[in-house]
This record gives sequence, C-alpha cells and structure tokens, in this order.
Amino acid sequence: MDLKSLIRHARGDEPADVLLRNARVVNVLSGEIVPASVAIAGDFIVGIGEYPAKHEVDLRGSFVAPGFIDAHVHVESAMVPPAEFARAVVPRGTTTVVTDPHEIANVLGLDGIRFMFESAKYGPLSMYVMASSCVPATTMATNGAALHGYDLFPLKSDPWVLGLAEVMNFPGVVRGEDSVLEKIGAFRDRPIDGHAPGVSGRELQAYVAAGITSDHESTTAGEALEKLRLGMMVFIREGSAARDLDALLPLVTSATQHRFCFCTDDCQPADLVERGGIDHMVRRSIAAGVDPVIAIRMATWNAAQHFRLSHRGAVVPGRRADLVVFDDLRAPSPRLVYRNGQLVAQDGRMVVPPRPPSRSLRGTMNVAWDAVDFGMRAEGRRARVIGVQEHQLVTRALVDEPPVIEGFACADPARDLLKVAVIERHMASGAMGRGFVQGIGLRRGAIASSVAHDHHNLVVVGADDRSMMTAARRVAAMQGGMAVCEGDGVVADVPLPLGGLMSHEPVEVVHHQVAAAVTAARGLGSPLHDPFMTMGFLALEVIPALKLTDQGLVDVDRFERVPLWLRC
Amino acid sequence: MDLKSLIRHARGDEPADVLLRNARVVNVLSGEIVPASVAIAGDFIVGIGEYPAKHEVDLRGSFVAPGFIDAHVHVESAMVPPAEFARAVVPRGTTTVVTDPHEIANVLGLDGIRFMFESAKYGPLSMYVMASSCVPATTMATNGAALHGYDLFPLKSDPWVLGLAEVMNFPGVVRGEDSVLEKIGAFRDRPIDGHAPGVSGRELQAYVAAGITSDHESTTAGEALEKLRLGMMVFIREGSAARDLDALLPLVTSATQHRFCFCTDDCQPADLVERGGIDHMVRRSIAAGVDPVIAIRMATWNAAQHFRLSHRGAVVPGRRADLVVFDDLRAPSPRLVYRNGQLVAQDGRMVVPPRPPSRSLRGTMNVAWDAVDFGMRAEGRRARVIGVQEHQLVTRALVDEPPVIEGFACADPARDLLKVAVIERHMASGAMGRGFVQGIGLRRGAIASSVAHDHHNLVVVGADDRSMMTAARRVAAMQGGMAVCEGDGVVADVPLPLGGLMSHEPVEVVHHQVAAAVTAARGLGSPLHDPFMTMGFLALEVIPALKLTDQGLVDVDRFERVPLWLRC
Repeated sequence: MDLKSLIRHARGDEPADVLLRNARVVNVLSGEIVPASVAIAGDFIVGIGEYPAKHEVDLRGSFVAPGFIDAHVHVESAMVPPAEFARAVVPRGTTTVVTDPHEIANVLGLDGIRFMFESAKYGPLSMYVMASSCVPATTMATNGAALHGYDLFPLKSDPWVLGLAEVMNFPGVVRGEDSVLEKIGAFRDRPIDGHAPGVSGRELQAYVAAGITSDHESTTAGEALEKLRLGMMVFIREGSAARDLDALLPLVTSATQHRFCFCTDDCQPADLVERGGIDHMVRRSIAAGVDPVIAIRMATWNAAQHFRLSHRGAVVPGRRADLVVFDDLRAPSPRLVYRNGQLVAQDGRMVVPPRPPSRSLRGTMNVAWDAVDFGMRAEGRRARVIGVQEHQLVTRALVDEPPVIEGFACADPARDLLKVAVIERHMASGAMGRGFVQGIGLRRGAIASSVAHDHHNLVVVGADDRSMMTAARRVAAMQGGMAVCEGDGVVADVPLPLGGLMSHEPVEVVHHQVAAAVTAARGLGSPLHDPFMTMGFLALEVIPALKLTDQGLVDVDRFERVPLWLRC
Repeated sequence: MDLKSLIRHARGDEPADVLLRNARVVNVLSGEIVPASVAIAGDFIVGIGEYPAKHEVDLRGSFVAPGFIDAHVHVESAMVPPAEFARAVVPRGTTTVVTDPHEIANVLGLDGIRFMFESAKYGPLSMYVMASSCVPATTMATNGAALHGYDLFPLKSDPWVLGLAEVMNFPGVVRGEDSVLEKIGAFRDRPIDGHAPGVSGRELQAYVAAGITSDHESTTAGEALEKLRLGMMVFIREGSAARDLDALLPLVTSATQHRFCFCTDDCQPADLVERGGIDHMVRRSIAAGVDPVIAIRMATWNAAQHFRLSHRGAVVPGRRADLVVFDDLRAPSPRLVYRNGQLVAQDGRMVVPPRPPSRSLRGTMNVAWDAVDFGMRAEGRRARVIGVQEHQLVTRALVDEPPVIEGFACADPARDLLKVAVIERHMASGAMGRGFVQGIGLRRGAIASSVAHDHHNLVVVGADDRSMMTAARRVAAMQGGMAVCEGDGVVADVPLPLGGLMSHEPVEVVHHQVAAAVTAARGLGSPLHDPFMTMGFLALEVIPALKLTDQGLVDVDRFERVPLWLRC
C-alpha cells in the first residue's frame, strides 16, 4: 500500500478492510490495556478506534497484542524448512523470527542461506536473517562451506538481513583476530548478536567493545546482569536443551525490562508441536509474576526496537498488522493470528492454504565410501575415550583399554564402551575420525545421523562395525537423516533430505519419526533421553573436553587434535 | 581508534589513556548507580572497572553519567552559530544535539545548512542534523530558498544527517500532498520528527501512519499520552517560550519512561547563559520527583536509542566517552565534561582552546530600498489590525479605524495602534507587506529585526515612518540583526550578520546586547517582556489568527491572504 492510500485509510476517508471491534488492545508503549477497535487496511494497521470498514470482526473483549518476535532461532533445529516451521509457530502467535541459518550454511554455504529465504518468502512468517558468522566453527573439522567477511558483505544489502549472527568465536574477538574483525567490521553499526557463555570481566568488555550488541547464552541472573550493565541486549532463551527463563526472570524489573527479548535458539520438533515457543515464554513469565504487558513487550516491541524493525512490534497506525488475539491475559494463547492484515491462523491451526513444498536441495551426502572403514588397528593399549554426560554438551576425557582382536580394537558394549566414527560427507574427501565413546549405552546395533553440530558430518555410534556400516549407509541413502540399525537391518529412520538437516514432512510427522527412532535406540539398550542429541554434540569441537571430528580426536581445552592412543 | 586497538584496551593489555577512579557510574541500562572506575582510550570508553592507565583522575565518589543529548533544537534561536552554541551548552553537560537548521535554511537553503556543519565540525559538540522539511513554510511569504524532496535526498548519505526534521506541514501530511510525501518517502525507515500541536484523533493517526516517529509539541499530558499510545516518541520540551516539562512529567512512569526524550527546541541567549538546557530539565525532573536515573536516561539513552546513535548514550565499553561528572545526584550540575574521551569543560567553563571563529556567510540583506515606503494610502475606513498577546504566538484579528492624514493612514501610539511592515530581504524583490498592530506598546520610535519566523524577512514596528526607516536601514547596514531607533537616531542594536540570525560575538555578549535592546524598546514605551520576540512571531503565517508577511496580511484560519482594508 502506498503512503497516500495508507494516510487516506488512517483518516477514515476510505473504509478499512477489517475492523477488529470490541478489542482490548495491549499497548506495549504506554503499558496499558486500552479498550478500542483496530482498523486494518492492506498489510497495515491504519487506526485505533472507530473506523468505517468493509468487514467487521467482533472480538467481544478479547485482547489484541502485536505478533510475537523470536529474537534468535536456528530454524534447522526443528528439522523442517521455514515454510513448515511457519506452520508450527504462526498459530502460536509468532509472526516474525530473526534467524541464524548457520546449520544449513555449514552444509551449503550461501546456497543454503538462499534456500532458507526461498522457503520463507511470501509465507505467513516474516523471517529475518542474521548473516552467519562462524562457518566453519573451526579448522579442526571439514564442513561444507566457508563464509568469510568477503562472502557475507553482499548480504548487507538484502533487506531481510539485519546484521551479523551470533559471533561464537569469542576468543577470536577477544584476541582481535583479523578474520573475525573483518566480519564485525562489515556489519558495523548494525545489530551483531553475541554468544558468550560464561564470558566475564575484561574478556566480556573486550567482546562488547568490539560492537557485539546482544547475548543469549546467560544461564544465571548474575551473568545476564553483567552483560546487561555493559550494554548488551539480553535475549532470554527457552529452547529444547537450554532453558534459561526461570533463572533470568528475576532480573526483569521496571528499570530493566526494556533490555530483554525472548528467543528459542534451538527448538526440536517435539517442543514445537507440544510446548510452544515464544507464546510459552510469555505464559511462563506471567505465571512467574511478570506483568503481562511487560511480558508481551519483551516478546514484541523490545525485539522490534533492538533489530530496528520499525514497522513491527506495536499495535499502532502505520505498522504491519501482525496481531495475536487471545482471551486470557494471565495465560495468552493466541486464538486468532493476523499477519500483514490477513487472518492466517485460528484456534491453533493455519487457515490459509499451505505453501507448495519447498523446492528440494541438491543432495549433500557426498561420502567416499571406499574410505569408510570402521576398523581401528590397536596402536597402543590405552585409548582416549569420550565420556558423554546426559543433558550436557560438555564431555569428559576418559582413558580406557578397549579389547583387541587380531590387532584391531573393538567395542565392548557390556561395559558401555562403543565405537564412534565421524565420516566427512560434504566433499567426499574420505576423511574419517574414529574413536571410543562411553555413555551412549547401546547394547547392540548402531545409530547414525547427519545432524552433528556444527559441521554436520555423518556421525555413527555402534556396538559392531556391521551395524555401523548399515546405519551410515542408510543415512546416506536417505540423503541425510537419522537411522537405528542392527546388523543388516534398519530398525527406524528419519529422512532429512534437505541438507541432511531438514525433512519434507510436516513437523508432527518428524516429531513422531524422531520419537520412534529414539524409542528404537533405547530398545537397543541406550538409557539416554535422546541418544541422537547426545551423539550429535559429541562431534562439536568447540565445547570441552574431548570431541571427535572427521579429522580425529580434539582436545578442546588445548584446542588441538590429539591421537587416539596414549603413548604409555 | 581501530577495532583491534579498542579490543586490546578493553582487555587491559594496553593501558587506557585515562582512568576515572572512584566513580559512581549512572547505569541507564540497569537503572543502577554502580561504584566503579571508567577507563577511556582515544575517543572511547574501553572498560568499567580497574584498568591500567597512563593517567588517573580520582573522582572521590562523584557520579559519572553519559553526556546529555538534546533531541531537538534550532541552534539559530540562540543567535550564535554552532561553535559558540557548543561553548554555551557543553559545560552544562550537553555533548550531542540533534538539530533542525531550518531558520538558516529558510535564508540560505543548503548553503545555510552547510554553514552549520562548517561551524560544528571538529568542535566539542556532536551536532546531528535532521533535514529541514518545511522550507518554505508556505507560499504566502517570500523566503530565501526552497528545499524539495529532490534537494533533501542527497543529505541522506551524510552520516551526520539522521532523518527528516519536524514536519510542520501536518495538514499537508494528513491530506497526503505529494510534495510532503516525497520528503517523507525519501527518509522512509529513518527517524522523522513531527510537529503536531493539538492534532488528535484520526488526523493524528494519519500523521503517525505516514511514518512520523516523534513529536515535541504536546503541551498537556492528555495530548502527549495520545501521541505516546500511537507510537510517537514524546520529546518533552523546555525552551525559552514553550515550557512543557511540568505539564508532561506526570506521564513519566516506570511503564512509559522509555518513550520520552528531552529537548529545548528554541533557546534564547538569556536562557542558555543563565538557566541551562537539558541539564536544567534533568534537575527540574528530579526535583519534581522523577527517579534521577530515569531523568538521566531520558536525557541520554532514550534519545540515542531513538536516533540510532549506537555509540552514544550509555557508559559502556565501545561507546564514545561523552561523559558528565557531577556531585549531587538530586541536582546534577556537571563539574567535568568529557567528550570523545577528552576533558572539554570544567566547573562550567570550556577548558579546550576555542575554535577559530566561524567563517562568515555572504550577506543576506538584499533589500530593494527604492520600493521601501511605509506610507499606507487609506483605502477604507476600517482596517484589519493584528492584536498581539504577550507570551503567545497566536494573535487576534482586530479591526480599528486608524487616523488618516492627507489620505494616508497613520499610527496612533496614544492608543497603541502602531504600523508594522515586513520587507522582503532575500531576493530584493521589492515585496513589502504593511499593516497595523496593537499590543507592542511603543509610544515613539521603532524597532526592527531580521529574525522573523520562518521566512526571516525584515520586520519593523513603529510609531512613525522616519523611525521605522532608520531602524530598517540600521538592520540592513549590520547585515541583519535587531535595532531600536527614534527619528534618525539608533538607540540600541544587536548585529546578527550570520544570515541575519546569528552573531559573531560570544553568547554572553549577545545576551547583553539583546537585553539592552529590549530595555531600549521598553524605554520607548513597550510594556512587553520581549517586544522583539513578539514582533518576530507576528510575521509567522502558519499560526493563527492574523499575520503579516511581505505578501501582505494573512488570515491563518482561512489560510489565505486578505486585504488590509475592510470593504464596508
């Protein structure tokens, strides 16, 4: 709608398309609930109050608030592409997300980011992108692409790109490494998201001085307060793994409430389907005693303000008509969701026709099968073993003596000593890391997955080589995904053919497929709540202590590769 | 300072230039007073806490806050150019101003705006500019330049230009006039300042829908609340004429405090010298019961956030070291002022050498003297008379019968009926408006000035033609200014050779010159507090009811020119 027409509607000289009558408007600017009607024309809110309209909806006293904004989310973690992600979150009131597509970018680089735009465009969810800053995370693993400042610079002129995504390489920032500063420099004076778990004192000050404007990694109020005091916007995160809401809410006061946004970061299909995202955070905040208008402000205006989304985040004339309608201010559950003035969801379901499925991506499972060999010649007696811990990304660096048969070291499922392999799957380079893991708990069979942060190589854990090969091949045959195998048989699988990360199926189907795969893995003996998630993170070489990549074992504390076998 | 060096200082690996020790830091983000030291390197704050430094200043518990930001000011109203304006406001803690140079722009167009930059550059005050949107204000007066969207567009790429200045033509916005929308369109998604006195309801909604993001014209809490609810940032104004602080402060609550900035709009030399600007507003707010940190937040962070000045407005690493130091949190009076890390003022005085005087401007008093004639042939019996009211810009439309001698209508000072003339002084067109005014109160002599909003033609009020001619010629001879004359003699004058608006003298000198001129005018019989200010506004053809321009009398309510003489 052009400006002139917008003004004409706001004057009331031309009838609005829709008038939401008898609403109680949540005014996140004045902190009030204001009884009023809301006039919508085209994509925009054009007036608050009585207006002539072509169509009226009597809300009978329901509340109208701005659509929710997720300030930081990796859509890929939901294992579905943006179009399907939208179908999951929009009915729950999230109309805008700020995403870092760094999972797909680690697989397919800029092509991967373009795919995310492709899947989001003209859909019912406004998807903004922060340019991924850490692709790859390190040089101790092979991933599918490398994005330097040179590559990110063109993204600046895309109106859907707001800034630079979480700069996870905080040591690089604090040390002033050129390659990191180049990226930060490219996005100077734009929002630059931070990722500084536990960083404090002068290191944090250096990180902030570099121009990082937010952080979503605080797990304690003290940590968040230090960041807030230094000028960072605190994104409170309630994801599937990391849940920080309870710990951080006590910091929200009338003095500080303008310095918080809500984000989900990583949300698995199960939580997306059963729990909710930002809507869940709003309800929990209110239940914890936060004033409802403040809770909604954190979920809307604060993020719009932070990211300079000047047409979103408030129910005022001239802003986009992204609105949620709900009945209970103590526990807002969106009954109606408007996006760009159109009713897109009602009673938890989309009411607009689904978009055609996302165009597929080219296959990304490029494995040099000739080089894939799970055999591990015993080059010593004592081997390094990754000790996984449930509900933690941090592993322990253990040492054990695996059984040796005919010169080859073997798994010993009886004492939970399993083999683990990470097979490079982007360049068909033949690179493959091999090691041992304790804590997965399979008694027999193997599990494999192409979801392995951040390089997303093919990771396999198993009790025997044959099962491991079956699982690895099954994942590759699906062009990515998760598999549970025993011997030559496939017990369960989850196809994730989009970059090896995302499915073509509806999120509910993926949720059930994943649940079935987890159940199958538990059937093979694993006591873990989610052995796939645990396995996925044992290949993440930026989190202590001992990890495995396609390049071999990594001692993260020393930040270098180490051999499997100890000398003595 | 490059990013790498900034980071090195923030780490503490390189000593800071200055460490402000034993400070109590006003943290406008957390709402706290935090005892700490502040490390400065180059232009920037590099750390909060203990840092190695080349030089230490023991503040002994003094408070450190961000430098104040004036969100909207016409520097020209102080009758001195930016360099001298800086000398007046910086010692009082204002380190950044957002200006609309529309007075000088009405005289000299883009050249006038460039002069303001020229005078401000590399000085101790950061002067940002909003592109003047209303040059000229109307077509019912002749001014010195016309700035269309076409002319403003190039300003967008100037890093010191933040957005579009107050769109005073609110009827034009509400009616959707192309010439106004062109300017708004050019600054889409940038801050666009509003000017909507008393505008309400659907008209206000149309104004907001057009993209206007702030307003500084609210004089009542009700008016400001309506604007705040609709999404406008409310600039609370405390200028020399308009003083809205007391009326609006009751609106400032913990819920709304993030929606207010402070501004002075128009500040005369007297107030600049004797009262203060933003510092005065901070003190008065606190005295009125506003929490000191909130008062300071409105004077700093809120404006920085609104104008996207991402390097100002908070005492945190990576922001510019614009700081004020004061001892009394209940009545902050800056004792030390740092700007870009340098101590620039102490105990109310600048401590850095003055900048060389601003380069002069070409003369702007271009009057066709042959056409200047104060004689007014009586073309009727009853004449329209402008009735001025002290302390109000609004005039009354009166009717009176002036005495007529030899066919010419004359002033009648005995009953306060004076002649008024507005002489076009930009293009030497010979245009001249003539009329009568009641309320100025001169018993004899005349006063003249080249400061006459917004066209700044030469306005003269007098008891006789000879005195009026003397005064007009005196102003022109000074290349602009104010004069008080009687017969052929000059009783007092104020030279304002810079565009006819600003002086080369220090602001204290201008203050005394103006005071002397006012005293002289009062000596000639005027009972007004400031007859020059009253006279200056009787030529402003956008404020009701009856005004005079070089084109003649204007009935502002009808928004058209009207003849001096009534028909019957």
